[in-house]
Amino acid sequence: MKKEQKVLGIDIGGTNIVFGFVNKSGKISNKTSLITADYDAFEPLAKDIFTLVNQQLLKNSSTGIISIGVGAPNGNFYSGNIEFAPNLPWGDKVPVREILNNLFQIPVLITNDANAAAYGEKVFGAAKNMKDFGLITLGTGLGSGIFTNGNLLHGHNGFGGEFGHIIVVENGRFCGCGKHGCLETYVSATGIKITALELLATTNENSSLRKERDLTGKIIQQHALEGDCLALKAFEITAEYLGKALANYVTIFDPEAIFLFGGLSLAGDLIFEPTKKYMEGNLMTIFKNKVKLLPSALEQNNAAIVGAAALAWDLL
Amino acid sequence: MKKEQKVLGIDIGGTNIVFGFVNKSGKISNKTSLITADYDAFEPLAKDIFTLVNQQLLKNSSTGIISIGVGAPNGNFYSGNIEFAPNLPWGDKVPVREILNNLFQIPVLITNDANAAAYGEKVFGAAKNMKDFGLITLGTGLGSGIFTNGNLLHGHNGFGGEFGHIIVVENGRFCGCGKHGCLETYVSATGIKITALELLATTNENSSLRKERDLTGKIIQQHALEGDCLALKAFEITAEYLGKALANYVTIFDPEAIFLFGGLSLAGDLIFEPTKKYMEGNLMTIFKNKVKLLPSALEQNNAAIVGAAALAWDLL
Repeated sequence: MKKEQKVLGIDIGGTNIVFGFVNKSGKISNKTSLITADYDAFEPLAKDIFTLVNQQLLKNSSTGIISIGVGAPNGNFYSGNIEFAPNLPWGDKVPVREILNNLFQIPVLITNDANAAAYGEKVFGAAKNMKDFGLITLGTGLGSGIFTNGNLLHGHNGFGGEFGHIIVVENGRFCGCGKHGCLETYVSATGIKITALELLATTNENSSLRKERDLTGKIIQQHALEGDCLALKAFEITAEYLGKALANYVTIFDPEAIFLFGGLSLAGDLIFEPTKKYMEGNLMTIFKNKVKLLPSALEQNNAAIVGAAALAWDLL
Repeated sequence: MKKEQKVLGIDIGGTNIVFGFVNKSGKISNKTSLITADYDAFEPLAKDIFTLVNQQLLKNSSTGIISIGVGAPNGNFYSGNIEFAPNLPWGDKVPVREILNNLFQIPVLITNDANAAAYGEKVFGAAKNMKDFGLITLGTGLGSGIFTNGNLLHGHNGFGGEFGHIIVVENGRFCGCGKHGCLETYVSATGIKITALELLATTNENSSLRKERDLTGKIIQQHALEGDCLALKAFEITAEYLGKALANYVTIFDPEAIFLFGGLSLAGDLIFEPTKKYMEGNLMTIFKNKVKLLPSALEQNNAAIVGAAALAWDLL
């Protein structure tokens, strides 16, 4: 019997490592999860993945895997390493590609999470026929994956697309990267939380948010949906930063579309409408009403694995 | 006798149209100049170019031209038109590619001036072995040509790389594009002139600039070189805007180098040193001390023709 060729997609995160087989249509199978904190080095983790994958392949004799795609924070496409990832406990430079390649003896490709999501959108999602687009991930931070002329923007050292770290406010909020005023300190789950706290601290406006013990992006979203003015204002402010930054993005890249993915993007109109308003309001005439601002078409739960696999499929 | 194959490079500007033959090494010959204002439509201009070029080819039987590269303000690579160029008197959409192709019956390629200069740098200049770099033209305005992964960033509609129109100051200086606070209103010959005038108006500092009847970028540069504090301050302020914008550029593109071309870039250390200081001071650790900030290696006088020709050579 001829085996169906699949790719192993691996999503490495600060909390979980999730992997699974992904076929050429983007369908995922044998999804498996491990806990990041259980491993104090990458080698034993890689060995466990190798063992588990081989067990699954033995049970599933119609499947063969031909390559591996890895999405990881600070995953570097060129070096094959995870480099200086603040939320992973395995050292400054983790040679992920080398270790996995030695075990599996098949090609291994790695990139960062936002790039992997952009690959997912390109290969399996709503950007299938697009050559020029950007995908913005709105999570704890803000990541971006950028395609120009059909190619992912890796940059000279593999660090291209750090759109979350453009400076948008002179002497603004302190960022984990060491700078001040980075976009992600305003536009992210962390960013909207600080914005809401600032609004609570600097006004005495009535707000149902005052009753919450711990604010999160999700909780602020719930209150905004219920019509709380202060929560709505936090979204408006967040969207203003994002929309203006996207106007600069459009001015530089002239993309066909920009996709918003994850976290805050799931707030739908709450984030899309004001973001579009501020983006369009800051564009030159030649760019106005041309760029589609869209939600990602990837299924949020599997996007990271599927995206990592898309990288491998795309480059095969 | 076998003819040497050359490309016809045409530089269309608001004052002059200059064209010449460019061989595969970037050597220019038969440079000819016409006056833009002499033509109230593009067709008669194209016919004059056709006639003059044929006369030159007749005299010069060892040369054959195989394609044409055109650099023009708002030249659109995809449509082949010059679109809405404020300083050209030939209408909103000028079908340059079609008209020249009909006359010459050889392939015609067109792009805007900054992109042409970037092509020149890539094919004949200091970016020969680079895949990821940016070239910033500092003239009356600020233009940019951006290479990622070895390809010029044209964008979806052919308007990519409008780096001069990213907004850097909220409600800042009015820009010809209709927006406020665009980078080019601060970083260009026009920008530094306004900065100097603002300094003259808002301080009573002694300055040799006060004796000048008409300030230009060049005059401010001369005074700065002679040590005038206010002129030096105008350069420092201009470089601060440019350096911070380039830090954001690096954060997005992770380039190997950024080239500065024309006008203000000819001020040498006056502009390069403070620009580098502000760029480096606003970079994340992973980008620090990696990006080369360099003067263009193209000969300023011929760069536009050579750049237009480079586009044609590169895509042949």
